[in-house]
Amino acid sequence: MSGYDDGNIFAKILRGEIPAAKIFETDDFTAIMDVMPQSKGHCLLLPKAPSRNLLDADDATLSKALPELARLARAAKAAFAADGVVISQFNEEAGGQTVFHLHFHVVPRYEGVELVRHAGGGMADPAVLREHAEAIRAHLA
Amino acid sequence: MSGYDDGNIFAKILRGEIPAAKIFETDDFTAIMDVMPQSKGHCLLLPKAPSRNLLDADDATLSKALPELARLARAAKAAFAADGVVISQFNEEAGGQTVFHLHFHVVPRYEGVELVRHAGGGMADPAVLREHAEAIRAHLA
Repeated sequence: MSGYDDGNIFAKILRGEIPAAKIFETDDFTAIMDVMPQSKGHCLLLPKAPSRNLLDADDATLSKALPELARLARAAKAAFAADGVVISQFNEEAGGQTVFHLHFHVVPRYEGVELVRHAGGGMADPAVLREHAEAIRAHLA
Repeated sequence: MSGYDDGNIFAKILRGEIPAAKIFETDDFTAIMDVMPQSKGHCLLLPKAPSRNLLDADDATLSKALPELARLARAAKAAFAADGVVISQFNEEAGGQTVFHLHFHVVPRYEGVELVRHAGGGMADPAVLREHAEAIRAHLA
């Protein structure tokens, strides 16, 4: 495992260098819509603290992450009346990781609807992502 | 979403009513090998506190879970010299959940090795699972 490189796309989003459809931001986390959604409402929780993935993250960050992730998952499920939610987090290339800043996927699932293969649907319309971010934000507890 | 039913298989394991290949146990969590592993070293973190899934879990449990999960993931990766690790957590039937007690999957990944489809490989040999649990335990920080 290599170390952390702050040139990754999520670090750039966290620094405000490139835009994202933001759902919420706290002192420690930013939640955004995934630009290549696998389902309607697919979003991401990004800790602001730099770590490559779960394997090198510190406990202080990790202890705060899961309550935030649950809050995001509940809101995403409610916003789109999803039937279920999958949480996933990928570590290293062999583990499916493509951006090397720790992030957690929240993927709403709908009965009878297959997932879009990652990147298979291409980039989503930014205006739609902003609408979806607003819909989730409206359902945050 | 229905409520919590303590007749589920993980509740029975936590009560000691049925056996499991246990990796470790703390006041709040038990880690066991998955009996239908998708890869070598596939294991599970079970909070002892009863909740159906992430959607109804309390923050006290969630704030402790991710540091434990990271500890388990690091140990599983080290024990089997895995190249990566996938973390997943499924909510409700449409989200792929089959046992309705909150649990987190730690799935080691190996370059060039596909995952076994869940349940596609059948039940693993309990003796092998006990060996794997011991191997992970030996690598816990």
